[in-house]
Amino acid sequence: MTAHTQSDTLLAEVTRGGRVESRHYGAAVVMDASGKTVFATGDVETPIYPRSTVKALLALPLLTEGAADKYALPPEALALACASHQGEPAHVAVAADMLARTGWDYGVLECGTHWPLDARATRALAAAGQEACALHNCCSGKHAGFICLACATGQDPAHYSRPEHPIMQTMARMLTDVTDVPHTDANRGTDGCAIPTWAIPLSALALGFARFATGTGLSADRAAAAARLRDAMTAAPFMIAGTDQFDTLVMQDLAPRVLTKMGAEGVMIAALPEKGLGIAIKCRDGGVRAAEVAAAALIARFGREDAPVLNHFMRRPLKNWNGTVVGELRAARELAGDRLPEGL
Amino acid sequence: MTAHTQSDTLLAEVTRGGRVESRHYGAAVVMDASGKTVFATGDVETPIYPRSTVKALLALPLLTEGAADKYALPPEALALACASHQGEPAHVAVAADMLARTGWDYGVLECGTHWPLDARATRALAAAGQEACALHNCCSGKHAGFICLACATGQDPAHYSRPEHPIMQTMARMLTDVTDVPHTDANRGTDGCAIPTWAIPLSALALGFARFATGTGLSADRAAAAARLRDAMTAAPFMIAGTDQFDTLVMQDLAPRVLTKMGAEGVMIAALPEKGLGIAIKCRDGGVRAAEVAAAALIARFGREDAPVLNHFMRRPLKNWNGTVVGELRAARELAGDRLPEGL
Repeated sequence: MTAHTQSDTLLAEVTRGGRVESRHYGAAVVMDASGKTVFATGDVETPIYPRSTVKALLALPLLTEGAADKYALPPEALALACASHQGEPAHVAVAADMLARTGWDYGVLECGTHWPLDARATRALAAAGQEACALHNCCSGKHAGFICLACATGQDPAHYSRPEHPIMQTMARMLTDVTDVPHTDANRGTDGCAIPTWAIPLSALALGFARFATGTGLSADRAAAAARLRDAMTAAPFMIAGTDQFDTLVMQDLAPRVLTKMGAEGVMIAALPEKGLGIAIKCRDGGVRAAEVAAAALIARFGREDAPVLNHFMRRPLKNWNGTVVGELRAARELAGDRLPEGL
Repeated sequence: MTAHTQSDTLLAEVTRGGRVESRHYGAAVVMDASGKTVFATGDVETPIYPRSTVKALLALPLLTEGAADKYALPPEALALACASHQGEPAHVAVAADMLARTGWDYGVLECGTHWPLDARATRALAAAGQEACALHNCCSGKHAGFICLACATGQDPAHYSRPEHPIMQTMARMLTDVTDVPHTDANRGTDGCAIPTWAIPLSALALGFARFATGTGLSADRAAAAARLRDAMTAAPFMIAGTDQFDTLVMQDLAPRVLTKMGAEGVMIAALPEKGLGIAIKCRDGGVRAAEVAAAALIARFGREDAPVLNHFMRRPLKNWNGTVVGELRAARELAGDRLPEGL
């Protein structure tokens, strides 16, 4: 097989002993809410599955349809509805509380069960002689939100995760409005937690989050809903992910100016309300570590942010099991520009 | 940033809903023991860190220096010395037993501690109120082997993992002999478990394993040692990795005709003794799943193997948390050729 041309760009590198060990390629785009492309690199048009990056958009109907107010959902709950959480006790408690407000318990959830993504939380659960349940699933907050939405709108939640259920039909229409691209059976797949996921261009995903960031280009009720969700993410960044996680660490320091959300298979969005921008990234090989690194670089550049947390994620030492520094994980120089911190 | 030319090749794809979601690129090479390149794709000359793929070579001195015989190491122990094990009870027991034969306990190990890679084993350990120790580290068998080697040759094991220790000097000389490329300070990095790792071309790694597979090109004592290690891997494939792991599953079915070993950051080797071949693969982004898929494809092609386990790894369904099939992980068609199983 001969050399091939690939239109993606270098996002991040792993080094060991001063030598490049691995490389991640992908695409990234920065849009403003008017639809102007502020920056693009790599293939930003081939449709990708946004996965969990769209969770904040999926939470908009919770506000616009009155579910958040009917059940007096606090900021932690609104944030958890936007989350891929680590299954730590605080996350589980909020998810359970959301459901309790509707009268349903976790048996109604259709996301499936897995042990907490947080290793310590898993060990603590096991040490306590307990088993994981659907509440520990990283999407349980989103799914609890679907239950709140169904109950608030007088719908039977049974099979709420199926594409034909009115809840998912609502999601498809809303996503189509917000991103300006179709969400139909033609581009639909199934996500890890059972609900549909629709493949769309990275540019459309970024546009959606430029609109979420600013309210520009959204209906008045969705703009107000987005503002409440931005506030919730800012008030409760721990809910969005958890201990030591990128989204939580970045938002703990930089929200409300910077809001981020990772998605499986190396997808990432960032919303920069003051700059009126949405950023979307896809690491083509699915590498989460590279999407985080690239996000830090683009947030630093286009958010004009000079923050330790971003510097950390743009370039950080890698340690072995003894805590010895053996290399680093760093943004591609071209991507980070003059924002790339000095090497160690 | 414009399109870039990259000399790597497509190894594997992840699909969802019939659409490609993520792609992995890298390089692969098949060598015979005379040094002839039977097949090569992608960049097989830029040095890469082989990581754990060289463990069977690192175990050769255990035999040639008489340590295996002095301590009457059974096949399980020889296999564990070649292993990146999952930290399951059977692995831990064998590592502890190896050390006990020398009179040292796990406090002498310099690999560091981590919880078992096997999730169930971790939960069981936590549920039993226990903590992980160095024995649970996936490299503890290799390190126990270093202790056996030090004791058998009358050396103080203290600091055995440092590059200047005679044990690591022995390893550097042996690796240089077996792969025909230098292993010096110039290409040395530090591995996850503290010992040195040297960056070498993928082609040299493949040559090393063609020699390990056949004994051709090795000194008589190393050829005999390689034969005993091949027998040990064949007798105890569970030791090499563990439950549900690629190396164990492949070797349970196909050893001694096929011997494999994964390495961190998407490296993989295979030794095919009857065909006289060594295979080496590097997924450039570090993706383990892609290295496994590519290995299955090349083993099927060049090993002339038609086996369910290889078909499984060449093309398998991906399921979500509910057990619903949502996509597949498959080898690149060009790589697998007519060996690629039909889609689901």
